[in-house]
Amino acid sequence: MSSSFGHLFRISTFGESHGGGVGVVIDGCPPGISVNESVIQLELDRRRPGQSEIVTPRKEADTAEILSGLHDGVTLGTPIAIVVKNTDQRPNAYDEMAVKYRPSHADYTYDAKYGLRAPSGGGRASARETIGRVAAAAVAKKVLDALHPGIEVLAWVKSIHDLNATVDPETVSFETIEGNIVRTGDPAMVEPMIERIKQVRGEGNSVGGVVECVIRNCPPGLGEPVFDKLEAELARAMLSLPATKGFEIGSGFAGTLLTGSQHNDPFRMIDGKVRTTSNRSGGIQGGISNGENIVFRVAFKPTATIMSSQETVTSSGENTDLAGRGRHDACVLPRAVPMVEAMATLVVCDHFLRQRAQCGGILRP
Amino acid sequence: MSSSFGHLFRISTFGESHGGGVGVVIDGCPPGISVNESVIQLELDRRRPGQSEIVTPRKEADTAEILSGLHDGVTLGTPIAIVVKNTDQRPNAYDEMAVKYRPSHADYTYDAKYGLRAPSGGGRASARETIGRVAAAAVAKKVLDALHPGIEVLAWVKSIHDLNATVDPETVSFETIEGNIVRTGDPAMVEPMIERIKQVRGEGNSVGGVVECVIRNCPPGLGEPVFDKLEAELARAMLSLPATKGFEIGSGFAGTLLTGSQHNDPFRMIDGKVRTTSNRSGGIQGGISNGENIVFRVAFKPTATIMSSQETVTSSGENTDLAGRGRHDACVLPRAVPMVEAMATLVVCDHFLRQRAQCGGILRP
Amino acid sequence: MSSSFGHLFRISTFGESHGGGVGVVIDGCPPGISVNESVIQLELDRRRPGQSEIVTPRKEADTAEILSGLHDGVTLGTPIAIVVKNTDQRPNAYDEMAVKYRPSHADYTYDAKYGLRAPSGGGRASARETIGRVAAAAVAKKVLDALHPGIEVLAWVKSIHDLNATVDPETVSFETIEGNIVRTGDPAMVEPMIERIKQVRGEGNSVGGVVECVIRNCPPGLGEPVFDKLEAELARAMLSLPATKGFEIGSGFAGTLLTGSQHNDPFRMIDGKVRTTSNRSGGIQGGISNGENIVFRVAFKPTATIMSSQETVTSSGENTDLAGRGRHDACVLPRAVPMVEAMATLVVCDHFLRQRAQCGGILRP
Amino acid sequence: MSSSFGHLFRISTFGESHGGGVGVVIDGCPPGISVNESVIQLELDRRRPGQSEIVTPRKEADTAEILSGLHDGVTLGTPIAIVVKNTDQRPNAYDEMAVKYRPSHADYTYDAKYGLRAPSGGGRASARETIGRVAAAAVAKKVLDALHPGIEVLAWVKSIHDLNATVDPETVSFETIEGNIVRTGDPAMVEPMIERIKQVRGEGNSVGGVVECVIRNCPPGLGEPVFDKLEAELARAMLSLPATKGFEIGSGFAGTLLTGSQHNDPFRMIDGKVRTTSNRSGGIQGGISNGENIVFRVAFKPTATIMSSQETVTSSGENTDLAGRGRHDACVLPRAVPMVEAMATLVVCDHFLRQRAQCGGILRP
Repeated sequence: MSSSFGHLFRISTFGESHGGGVGVVIDGCPPGISVNESVIQLELDRRRPGQSEIVTPRKEADTAEILSGLHDGVTLGTPIAIVVKNTDQRPNAYDEMAVKYRPSHADYTYDAKYGLRAPSGGGRASARETIGRVAAAAVAKKVLDALHPGIEVLAWVKSIHDLNATVDPETVSFETIEGNIVRTGDPAMVEPMIERIKQVRGEGNSVGGVVECVIRNCPPGLGEPVFDKLEAELARAMLSLPATKGFEIGSGFAGTLLTGSQHNDPFRMIDGKVRTTSNRSGGIQGGISNGENIVFRVAFKPTATIMSSQETVTSSGENTDLAGRGRHDACVLPRAVPMVEAMATLVVCDHFLRQRAQCGGILRP
Repeated sequence: MSSSFGHLFRISTFGESHGGGVGVVIDGCPPGISVNESVIQLELDRRRPGQSEIVTPRKEADTAEILSGLHDGVTLGTPIAIVVKNTDQRPNAYDEMAVKYRPSHADYTYDAKYGLRAPSGGGRASARETIGRVAAAAVAKKVLDALHPGIEVLAWVKSIHDLNATVDPETVSFETIEGNIVRTGDPAMVEPMIERIKQVRGEGNSVGGVVECVIRNCPPGLGEPVFDKLEAELARAMLSLPATKGFEIGSGFAGTLLTGSQHNDPFRMIDGKVRTTSNRSGGIQGGISNGENIVFRVAFKPTATIMSSQETVTSSGENTDLAGRGRHDACVLPRAVPMVEAMATLVVCDHFLRQRAQCGGILRP
Repeated sequence: MSSSFGHLFRISTFGESHGGGVGVVIDGCPPGISVNESVIQLELDRRRPGQSEIVTPRKEADTAEILSGLHDGVTLGTPIAIVVKNTDQRPNAYDEMAVKYRPSHADYTYDAKYGLRAPSGGGRASARETIGRVAAAAVAKKVLDALHPGIEVLAWVKSIHDLNATVDPETVSFETIEGNIVRTGDPAMVEPMIERIKQVRGEGNSVGGVVECVIRNCPPGLGEPVFDKLEAELARAMLSLPATKGFEIGSGFAGTLLTGSQHNDPFRMIDGKVRTTSNRSGGIQGGISNGENIVFRVAFKPTATIMSSQETVTSSGENTDLAGRGRHDACVLPRAVPMVEAMATLVVCDHFLRQRAQCGGILRP
Repeated sequence: MSSSFGHLFRISTFGESHGGGVGVVIDGCPPGISVNESVIQLELDRRRPGQSEIVTPRKEADTAEILSGLHDGVTLGTPIAIVVKNTDQRPNAYDEMAVKYRPSHADYTYDAKYGLRAPSGGGRASARETIGRVAAAAVAKKVLDALHPGIEVLAWVKSIHDLNATVDPETVSFETIEGNIVRTGDPAMVEPMIERIKQVRGEGNSVGGVVECVIRNCPPGLGEPVFDKLEAELARAMLSLPATKGFEIGSGFAGTLLTGSQHNDPFRMIDGKVRTTSNRSGGIQGGISNGENIVFRVAFKPTATIMSSQETVTSSGENTDLAGRGRHDACVLPRAVPMVEAMATLVVCDHFLRQRAQCGGILRP
């Protein structure tokens, strides 16, 4: 079950960096939703390599093909299979890595778990695996648009290395974010961030950073009280993305420096709705959305593949050295933005259907 | 499915702060494991209210009764049901709260989700719900001890408010932690932390903090490559605990300030094993344990119940004020320590069985 | 997961014939449903031993206690735990059986699976395990009554040994069935069936038979196209009951003797609805209910416990003989009727919620 | 979840009779198992149309392509995606059926469930959906061969219409069954059965029948005590196949005509093993395999598509008539044989992994 996500809007991804292709099967999609390949392609293009000068120059068209589940551009309620063929494989590029474990990659742990692994390209640990997630989330977005219009999931680069963007989750727009190749929400930080990425890339090094995400107009009532708290599901979703090291919601770790009287969100009636006048809760209370903006942050470590020589061992147990080669992102953050949005969208869509199942739908729209 | 956790060692908790009791059913427990009520009681006693001068003075014996799944002190492989009766109920203590939503509690969101709620004590959002988790984890610990001896799960208070403990996850001992009522691993911080808790309690206020946890001697190979990455499962487990706002593993958010060459963990052969000479990965690479210590941190917000008057609304939609009353923790951290350990133990036990199912067991013990 | 059933209305049963008690936890129950202990008790009383002269004389009050999930007689949407304490245990009655495998019981297979077993009373293979199912189904029935009134699940004894009842699934009433201790729907067969049971009991022998069940007023659209076809779920539900050997729906095995032109159910518009003028499909087509009566039959083997001496082996591997002792049903059919109804009700309730989740509810009420 | 099957060896099928193709994703497959496309193709060829003169003349090559999860002909432990492209689509052949509900097909119920459906070929209700099952089972068979050699799953046509084959489940061979196009195990019935199928086909009519299946050398201990009893899982698996109306195991419905003393299977020690000297239990007791042959039967109704005119209605609610056209099986039984084997293999493989997870493997090999 490693490769399935969601309880009612359930996706199962497959595929490695080598082999025929990658993709996803979506089970449980409501019928009658307008979906086509271009809707999916739009999101895949935001995720794919080669889209700008600061991401890996690998050229992968990542063309989505829908094999099932649709008729005349409308979902049938049956499983939707989406496949993206692998095209730009360079198996030889990985010859050295087949015997030497790349530091802070999954090479060693795959061997330790399975007793074997595909010697090229990272297998399921490749960022290519996220293609299936992004494709499925494009469908989930259409489901939400049809069943509860207005929910908006928007992510941006909050920091790269020690460069911090100043972004207001209430007001930042998709146009602002998508209007720069870093995908930050702070125009003033675009150039510094681009420069930093180019600099570390020039040094054969890499950097990480933080992606922030807001879910706007999420209706109250999504999420479950105990193990499937909405924040728990978001945390799992985000930590399932490659290279992530942390998740925080609302006040997050900084909230531990406040007292209760500083931290609590007062309730007020506003326009006939129960609202909070601050949002340190981050839009979720007791595991359930309260109608405020859901705001969270995800930490991405610096890319593990660097060009300088590092100590490592071979799969046969000898100490050695290894320097990265080939085409890699010196910073995954710009491409991580659509991945974070995808996972958040999948969580919301799944919980929307769960709410419909148990309680008949959104009680306070 | 809100109340179930785990795929193969599967627990289902039940119970509210009101009503007959709380508990858990464990399905999938291996047969032949020695378990009895005192093993469970030991852990429940670390979790229960009234155990020291800095936690809530509520007196709840929290006595565990095992209804099924055992014979002669040994598990049968069939479901283990454990019940703890509710005894110290004071329904009247909650009369005001029945109509006024407590700020930053789950009162409003339960109403928004279900259209109704029990008017007393927080329902499933009560910390009492964690009794079932702690009881189940006591069984999971016995399973791991029997099937793969040596795994040690240890948590401690890393910070309270702005007071930070200095603790070495490699060496800190259960005796050190359990030897002080704060459950911190830094003897020098015990008194300052106790003072801080007493001070904010005296002011009718509350504080939060961070719990850190290490899993020692976890064998390589646990965890799954994609959605069920070990860190993703830990993140979900921790964010499912009441009052949590963040999770980070290994280098965490601070790791985003490093470059790749600073962050990567070099591999070396040590005593015939593949080891890393640093541990910024936090013991997990590509979602799978690598044999190093698994180290993570969990942020707990300041307790929502405070004694000062706060703005809120009634369930019928009128602005009003509310001051907390009754017996509450001014700081949940000391009692959160066994909860964090419990959830981590459940995750490891479940993934141990998953590894056994798919790969036949631990390949590199 | 052996002990869980249902995807959205999910029950987890626990408990053995020995030990503290048996019961069930229901997760996913819609909120706002009126439920109380007497609703559950009513169904348990139909299932319990000692209710008439033709069932086992064991005296078990089987009193249901609801521990959680309700407030003021209404479901909260949180897990409902129901416990029935064990009272009439006679561990000594099973001394001989602890070492000798009872033929056609689960004694040997439990040992083979788990390497150990509780030496008394059959453990989870005891019919007592069905208490949790019947209790949960009493709640499911209330859910269906509230969300889609009119669905009626009715079972009866169709045959005992070679005695066949003539019953019309369209018209047979609960009063007719419940009005006789055999629970057959054919008044003419009541006395012969009672006589047969008494006769075989007098001979220390046992008999089996067939239970037939109808689900009336089931709306069209319940069930899923592939693995979770409504008939597949019913088949699994029924074969999970103790002592069952077969399941057939609509025309069943006899339908294989017809040609397609004899077997197909013609469609006609009747009162503005799509109806079939015959019902060899048994109310389900392509895995999905079509609005006609769902009719199926379940075969129950003769009770395995008989009083005559039989060849068997000991748990240490020696040939021996064993004669049954104690108090047992010579025919389980009368008590199987409420069990069949319970499982059918659970299946329908679960699929009703699934339909609500994916398609927004019943499209053709 | 309609389209997923299995708990640990989990398959998710997708695809309709129209659209790009059909296939399956297998999650949880053990690593290191030798698999290739020809292993899969072999089983698909037994299932495909056009293989003999008594099945539908549709020509579909049904060529399997493995997209992921393998390296150098060995499973990696990651998801295995298998796709079969649709080639022989004749959308126009279904024009009339797009508006008229075919009697005893799923056309009406799909509309009733989803509010829409693909107007051609039956969608997921098409027998093409079983391609994914058969492909996945070919992999499951390799898993069992590697982890527990000797298990043999063998099915045959037991009856067609009123023609009954005499077959001994202990001794019938794959060669005998596969050596005739009916796939019966009784050489004497081959010609009569072929004649009957040709005759009803000539009349534009159809017939059904019974498939019998044996699982030989299944080790004791597979299956779970309560809801996931091995027979319950087999029943669900079989009733999920298109056109099935009944399932019985061991003595089945006929067993209800025996008394307990006639029905019970005596235990004896034979060659140091616990064996039964009869097998009315059908190889399963209390939901768990006992080491004897598992024997069950599945009823298939006569094919719904017939050439004579039948009463039906249009999707807009008008009475009308419809005669089948196009290329169809007059009897699905020969092609159902590999489907029954496939589903049985999937159940056994899944439970083998479950046993390994909970109990460490087969305790009595």
